[in-house]
Amino acid sequence: MGPNASWPDRVLVTDVVTRDGLQDEARTVPTADKLAVIAALVDAGVRSVEAASFVHPGLVPQMADADELMARLPRCPGVRYSVLVPNRKGAERALATPPHEVRLVVSASEHHNRANLNRSVDESLAELADVVDYVRAREPDVAIVAGLATAFMCPVEGAVPVDRLRYMVGKLTAMGVGSVNLADTTGSANPVLVGTSVAAVQDTFPTVELSLHLHDTLGRGLANALAGLNAGVQSFDASLGGLGGCPFAPGAAGNVATEDLVSMLHAMGVRTGIDPVALARASDLLPAAVGHGLASTAWRLRQSAAEASA
Amino acid sequence: MGPNASWPDRVLVTDVVTRDGLQDEARTVPTADKLAVIAALVDAGVRSVEAASFVHPGLVPQMADADELMARLPRCPGVRYSVLVPNRKGAERALATPPHEVRLVVSASEHHNRANLNRSVDESLAELADVVDYVRAREPDVAIVAGLATAFMCPVEGAVPVDRLRYMVGKLTAMGVGSVNLADTTGSANPVLVGTSVAAVQDTFPTVELSLHLHDTLGRGLANALAGLNAGVQSFDASLGGLGGCPFAPGAAGNVATEDLVSMLHAMGVRTGIDPVALARASDLLPAAVGHGLASTAWRLRQSAAEASA
Repeated sequence: MGPNASWPDRVLVTDVVTRDGLQDEARTVPTADKLAVIAALVDAGVRSVEAASFVHPGLVPQMADADELMARLPRCPGVRYSVLVPNRKGAERALATPPHEVRLVVSASEHHNRANLNRSVDESLAELADVVDYVRAREPDVAIVAGLATAFMCPVEGAVPVDRLRYMVGKLTAMGVGSVNLADTTGSANPVLVGTSVAAVQDTFPTVELSLHLHDTLGRGLANALAGLNAGVQSFDASLGGLGGCPFAPGAAGNVATEDLVSMLHAMGVRTGIDPVALARASDLLPAAVGHGLASTAWRLRQSAAEASA
Repeated sequence: MGPNASWPDRVLVTDVVTRDGLQDEARTVPTADKLAVIAALVDAGVRSVEAASFVHPGLVPQMADADELMARLPRCPGVRYSVLVPNRKGAERALATPPHEVRLVVSASEHHNRANLNRSVDESLAELADVVDYVRAREPDVAIVAGLATAFMCPVEGAVPVDRLRYMVGKLTAMGVGSVNLADTTGSANPVLVGTSVAAVQDTFPTVELSLHLHDTLGRGLANALAGLNAGVQSFDASLGGLGGCPFAPGAAGNVATEDLVSMLHAMGVRTGIDPVALARASDLLPAAVGHGLASTAWRLRQSAAEASA
């Protein structure tokens, strides 16, 4: 039991930097650089890495090396790799590698699903069901996680009603998906909304494993993580250096930074198994790889300290 | 009753930008600029402003205009001004203006008190008692708030034990001080520590009014504010643009930004009486005044959006 009665002793932190963190970068990061970052993450004690996305290389050139990356990953006991799979074709490529986990994606918001995937939510759900059947039949040991984008807020439709969230999770569980990743895609959720939404899903689907994918766009990433912990969530995505998910210029925050999340969790007495010093070394690989500074508070503080002492 | 059973409908946000926000700035901000910022804050609905500090002008040149600033402040019904008073001499100057509230300061950590005030905690407490008596005798209608610096964490001594916090608050209540501002001076508190500390003080001193002064140094400012709300706190300091309290270069965060705190509170259904659009206009006055960009997430997002569309 953790410091709060309802908290776990330990949470799982999944680093998504080489997938979500890099997919919108202007510079295409070489496979060797991605491998070095993942090796450093594993060295630091990270046990879950979202490594790549099997989208069409023409759509996301940053992810064109997904097959090669997966083939060259350091395979270590206890370290699990997940990959994003947008459709059956992606699933075929992914399962050839194979990952420990595939992540599918659909938006809770109709608007966002059409903007992101160019189809209706129900069309996406039908395609997802087909991919789930395919993965189950071909590789029954590969875990399946459904990522629910805009699970809390849609930039056009506003707050996602809990009934909508229940509808979506109900459709996913009906396919046999037992693990759902709720994503605050735009970083505009708030702790009350996160807490209410998680509680609603857990009450209705008590056996579903929930994880959170939070962004720090409005500076609420850690506050939303705290709300998730309070609601019983034990699994969080984060991105080394806070990279990713930012539609604007560098400087505006993207994903919750792995360093900042781990630092707060440890300070609160919640273990992650991750060594903060080694994690900082891993993040120091990123600026050269992406060609700009990082968004994590930890990195900006180190930069400021270095400038002040220079 | 707010969205959580224990939350208030409304909280008081005290903006401290012209005091804590500016006191370490390299450039001395003209009185007229400070007045323009305070007028814009009041226009935006801010009803509590920590306007200045009556420290020795030789020590903090940024605050040398405290008397003039107080004389020229826009006096409006319902708007309260507080000032920091380090000693009896400062109290004499302050009461001539006069403010609605004086704020005294002492550190919970012996180390920090010696570093900051060059005397022991008990020496500071004796001096505080003298200042309290003086203020009470001369201006009984002026409110007195004791600011407790390093209330949660000391950079040298580590986490402040709750017994130490109870000792300090006990000394302050024995002087007749009924309002205590707990400050996370280094921004290194965490939500569990904030929640535990606030609960301990409230259990022992149920009639003391607690407020929180949080810094965003490690990106935990809003998470710590959430922990404070959950523990029943109804009054928060914040600094427009996130200025202040940063020993390093610009870019590393200082105080919790008023814009970011207000934005999260409103999103959670907690009212502040502050208009976010007018608050953004107020923050736009700051970059020219201080000669650099701001640390608030709201400001950085607007900058990124402007750069992206340029």
